[in-house]
Amino acid sequence: MHPHGATGPLVAALDIGGTKIAGALIDTEGRPVVRSLRPTPPGGDGETVMRAVAEAVAELRAAPQWSAVVAVGIGSAGPVDALHGTVSPVNVPGWRDFPLVPRVGEAAGGLPVVLTGDGVAMTAAEHWQGAARGYDNALCMVVSTGVGGGLVLGGALLPGPTGNAGHIGHISVDLDGDLCPCGSRGCVERIASGPNIARRALESGWLPPAGTEPTAAAVAESARGGDPLAVASFDRAAQALAAGIAATATLVEINVAVIGGGVAGAGPVLFDPLRDHLSRYATLSFAAGVEVVPAKLGTDAGLVGAAAAAAQGLGLSGFVAG
Amino acid sequence: MHPHGATGPLVAALDIGGTKIAGALIDTEGRPVVRSLRPTPPGGDGETVMRAVAEAVAELRAAPQWSAVVAVGIGSAGPVDALHGTVSPVNVPGWRDFPLVPRVGEAAGGLPVVLTGDGVAMTAAEHWQGAARGYDNALCMVVSTGVGGGLVLGGALLPGPTGNAGHIGHISVDLDGDLCPCGSRGCVERIASGPNIARRALESGWLPPAGTEPTAAAVAESARGGDPLAVASFDRAAQALAAGIAATATLVEINVAVIGGGVAGAGPVLFDPLRDHLSRYATLSFAAGVEVVPAKLGTDAGLVGAAAAAAQGLGLSGFVAG
Repeated sequence: MHPHGATGPLVAALDIGGTKIAGALIDTEGRPVVRSLRPTPPGGDGETVMRAVAEAVAELRAAPQWSAVVAVGIGSAGPVDALHGTVSPVNVPGWRDFPLVPRVGEAAGGLPVVLTGDGVAMTAAEHWQGAARGYDNALCMVVSTGVGGGLVLGGALLPGPTGNAGHIGHISVDLDGDLCPCGSRGCVERIASGPNIARRALESGWLPPAGTEPTAAAVAESARGGDPLAVASFDRAAQALAAGIAATATLVEINVAVIGGGVAGAGPVLFDPLRDHLSRYATLSFAAGVEVVPAKLGTDAGLVGAAAAAAQGLGLSGFVAG
Repeated sequence: MHPHGATGPLVAALDIGGTKIAGALIDTEGRPVVRSLRPTPPGGDGETVMRAVAEAVAELRAAPQWSAVVAVGIGSAGPVDALHGTVSPVNVPGWRDFPLVPRVGEAAGGLPVVLTGDGVAMTAAEHWQGAARGYDNALCMVVSTGVGGGLVLGGALLPGPTGNAGHIGHISVDLDGDLCPCGSRGCVERIASGPNIARRALESGWLPPAGTEPTAAAVAESARGGDPLAVASFDRAAQALAAGIAATATLVEINVAVIGGGVAGAGPVLFDPLRDHLSRYATLSFAAGVEVVPAKLGTDAGLVGAAAAAAQGLGLSGFVAG
């Protein structure tokens, strides 16, 4: 038997986004011991998306380790409503006030279910065992299909009353800017998400490298090769992220901004201009020293953090920073 | 003898801004029982400004009630550095890392001195006995020569490690916007402060009513009379404030935004377009219901809050919400 985890309690975690529905059983050291994965049905109605979630849960239940599961943690694309157990993700149009908590509770055989926004979950994970470990005041972000985030203030996770605090993707940094699907204008996500990086590059005349789809990853590849249109699209995303991070530092005094998600995988093509822009937006003494670092937990952060946030919400020991 | 206050402890409060230096002795019910007031020496060097502060303190010390004073609270224009006892107010160029806490300590005969940003102080006051009373999650703002603010989260004042949290005047809501004296671009203050409301109106061709100076108050008077240029300048300020309030609601889940300061005195000319714009920027479910209300404590909020924050910092009873 494995020396860790297999004999301790497990939390079943779900990470639900606009692209994929990931599930895992997480042990007290933050390791996924069983996994499941489904694509999010694109444009599907509420029940179609729910069916994919239920399948992901059923796959976890089929594992022998399920008997050690004591709770379910969900990190969902936002907004979520932790008070009422419902979700209305911007990127999942079929779900509006969808009762995800009771439905997952049914699928999981009646275990307690704790819901947080995916950004809050990712933050719990990075604070527990990732790049925000040891920081008392941190912003963690996911830059991917959407842009989400979460906050640690005074050493503690700040989920906010409804589980959405730190939702940096939908603050406006360009008050006259382009309309965002959320209804506002000039949101960080509207400028810095992967699809918007690709869209802006294409609109400026960029052509993806031969044989590649026109994604943010392809724009990053072109930018690494010096393509000025690709560099410009990443620079604009970096500028919007910098303005949002500076706003957060100015509002709540953070010391570090941790950035994960697929777009963060672009590396220096994103981080170099981001740090450069940040030095121009975060100018006041108390905001000027914010470090910007890549997330450590990669795509597992949402799962690990959903487990951590659930364990914290239910008072389970062993799933949080010591 | 007055039935309240005169026999209890007092806190000497200083409210230091770009326009005036106000002092008062504050009783346990939040009433100023003795006052002093000086204009802030415009463009003065550090010692000139400090001399005005020392005079304001000396005037308070001359009052017979001084014997009941147990502490000094300072709310200063930001940024402040509560960790080091220094201030570097954007609107007081003569002070950069100026050691205000020890200097005021000398002037006050060695009493303990607690420093917070003026926005944090105003927030403590409005939460203690003003418009934020009874709210667990609030943003309070001062819109005046500058734009400051503070936060109450989870029922408690959030000064932040250095005393500057809630500094909403210097978040960028227009990432390509006009340069701000702080070094950033498109800050809320750069668009919505009183001087910027007047400047924008004048630049658009507005003329102040006969016999009045071209101030934000004069723009408000013209706007109340229907002058479209004056209305437009207030509308733009309201738009920037709305974007900043929406950003705060999206980042930390506030339920109310309290707005004080001279510009808030414009009344519906500011508040009506502000609520209108806010409904377009604060679109996500958890952010959409933020109330916007005028501050209750008027120009005394800075003094009352400096006393409240000092009393909280030193663990004195009787100066905070029950």
